Amino acid sequence: MTHEIAVIPGDGIGREVTPAAVDVLEALEIDFEFVEADAGDAVREETGEALPQETYDLAASADATLFGAAGDTAADVILPLRTAVDSFVNIRPAKAYPGIDAVRPETDLVFLRENTEGVYAGHEDRLTQDVSTLTRVVTESASERLAEFACEYVDGDDHDGFSIVHKANVMRETDGLFRDTVVSVADEHGVETDQVLMDAFATRVCLDPDQFDVVVCPNLAGDVLSDLAAGLVGGLGLLPSANVGPDRALFEPVHGTAPDIAGQGIANPAATIVSAAMLLEYLGYDEKSAAVHEAVEATLENGPRTPDLGGDASTADVTAAIIDRL
Amino acid sequence: MTHEIAVIPGDGIGREVTPAAVDVLEALEIDFEFVEADAGDAVREETGEALPQETYDLAASADATLFGAAGDTAADVILPLRTAVDSFVNIRPAKAYPGIDAVRPETDLVFLRENTEGVYAGHEDRLTQDVSTLTRVVTESASERLAEFACEYVDGDDHDGFSIVHKANVMRETDGLFRDTVVSVADEHGVETDQVLMDAFATRVCLDPDQFDVVVCPNLAGDVLSDLAAGLVGGLGLLPSANVGPDRALFEPVHGTAPDIAGQGIANPAATIVSAAMLLEYLGYDEKSAAVHEAVEATLENGPRTPDLGGDASTADVTAAIIDRL
Ligand SMILES: CC(C)[C@H](C(=O)O)[C@@H](O)C(=O)O
Ligand SMILES: CC(C)[C@H](C(=O)O)[C@@H](O)C(=O)O
Repeated sequence: MTHEIAVIPGDGIGREVTPAAVDVLEALEIDFEFVEADAGDAVREETGEALPQETYDLAASADATLFGAAGDTAADVILPLRTAVDSFVNIRPAKAYPGIDAVRPETDLVFLRENTEGVYAGHEDRLTQDVSTLTRVVTESASERLAEFACEYVDGDDHDGFSIVHKANVMRETDGLFRDTVVSVADEHGVETDQVLMDAFATRVCLDPDQFDVVVCPNLAGDVLSDLAAGLVGGLGLLPSANVGPDRALFEPVHGTAPDIAGQGIANPAATIVSAAMLLEYLGYDEKSAAVHEAVEATLENGPRTPDLGGDASTADVTAAIIDRL
Repeated sequence: MTHEIAVIPGDGIGREVTPAAVDVLEALEIDFEFVEADAGDAVREETGEALPQETYDLAASADATLFGAAGDTAADVILPLRTAVDSFVNIRPAKAYPGIDAVRPETDLVFLRENTEGVYAGHEDRLTQDVSTLTRVVTESASERLAEFACEYVDGDDHDGFSIVHKANVMRETDGLFRDTVVSVADEHGVETDQVLMDAFATRVCLDPDQFDVVVCPNLAGDVLSDLAAGLVGGLGLLPSANVGPDRALFEPVHGTAPDIAGQGIANPAATIVSAAMLLEYLGYDEKSAAVHEAVEATLENGPRTPDLGGDASTADVTAAIIDRL
């Protein structure tokens, strides 16, 4: 069966790393049909719209989407694209690689971030000159859906259970509902959980990331704490992510458009290529996914490396080396 | 003029480190009148109330309050106490000490955390079985008050300016109001600012804390990011804080009740003693404040040390050593 893969490079280094990841996928000789579409600052410049309707529709119908990065319009692009694939969970592995400088080389975490609500539900009002409000939304149904996914995830991937991170001591009703719902789903599945307050998690993960494994959290907590974990493993440059929905999914590096190096052909394609490996696993190509992971790891360890990792190789050199190692 | 100092030890190691800090203050022979009051789990056990009215009233009338820690009731105690002193800013220095193991020994940051609103304003509802909401509140007036304070702070303390941390790309109206208000106050004062998204800050502060100095942020961001900085300097054990209002202030270590070691007389009193040094500075005893800071630093570097820092000294030993060095 042919899978249709939407490819949305976006802006900046997105235009360099996304084609690199497509090259890797093409090298695997799977029956993929790639369809490219525009989004981001450049297309807004031209058309007034950061996310053209046809790009949204493509993501909403393709089997999987590979997205690069967007500049100032990032939120206008990625948030609707997450909706386009009805993504209820954002999977963000944050792991240090052998041979890569990391603040905490023992970091090996996976964040399962709620991907539809929290402050991102975004009902905001300016009530008066002085007062603005935002309605944070937490539902039992979204918490349940995330928790069901988390239980399957830890079972399938042989983890001992997961940590629930929240701030229910302050957000008693909303994060309380999140926490209680996730705990009760986990209990039904016989999955072990522990609970950590969001602030305490931030301290503890720096001191000893080894004490955590899979972390289930609300939307903004997942945003900030996965970026914190990125800091611990040496930066955003290596982090992949998957926005998973019931019928389709969107894969993207956690990094942005890196305007300082965009256009020079020296962007590190690793995060996007690992995102493509997650895409392969999602579509059932487990062995090919593992092969890509291994090829990236070997290349990170033995080179060639792009300048962000102290090397002087180009995006094309690194991509070719990864393809060679497949 | 006699200053009345409210002393609220709370629970757990709060009952050990708070008296230690009072010992240090007493050794300075200032005309302080200490008045002790209860709060926390133990008093709730007895009376049903974590924060008795007389404790609230005391904090609301004393010149300054020294608070230890509270257990499960922490939020029921500290949030109203912050209101009692009308505290609009929580000052949280996070700095690594010479000789103390730190993930990032170059960390030297001060967070100025908005202390009245954001998600802490806490209007929550359970709309249906499925849906809960929390109304996050951001006002121009609170943002202005914080920004005015921040401008004075960086001027008085000889900093180059400050960073504004927010998530206005998602919370456009509320964090947008926060950001715009703080920027415009800073511009009026000729104070330099830069802006960092909350998630990007989490990554960047791990990679290179030196790039930041004074950080101005909304309430929850300040909670989480200062705890992250605590992780970078070796844990919560050394972080002091000040909740400052227009007429009075409350000082507290950032750590909690440490139930695992409570009652053994081995808690590290440093964070509470440095909080007392902040109290001294707040009341105008700048030289005595500096003396306490120096005595704590010398003791952290040369010992004696409590077990959390690899030593085997008691709280009393460390306190005596600090007093000796005054
Ligand atoms: C661009 C922004 C809206 C987005 C988010 O906050 O989710 C980004 O930070 C991310 O984590 O993918
Ligand atoms: C106990 C809790 C309500 C409090 C907060 O979130 O402000 C604590 O984490 C802190 O930072 O002092």
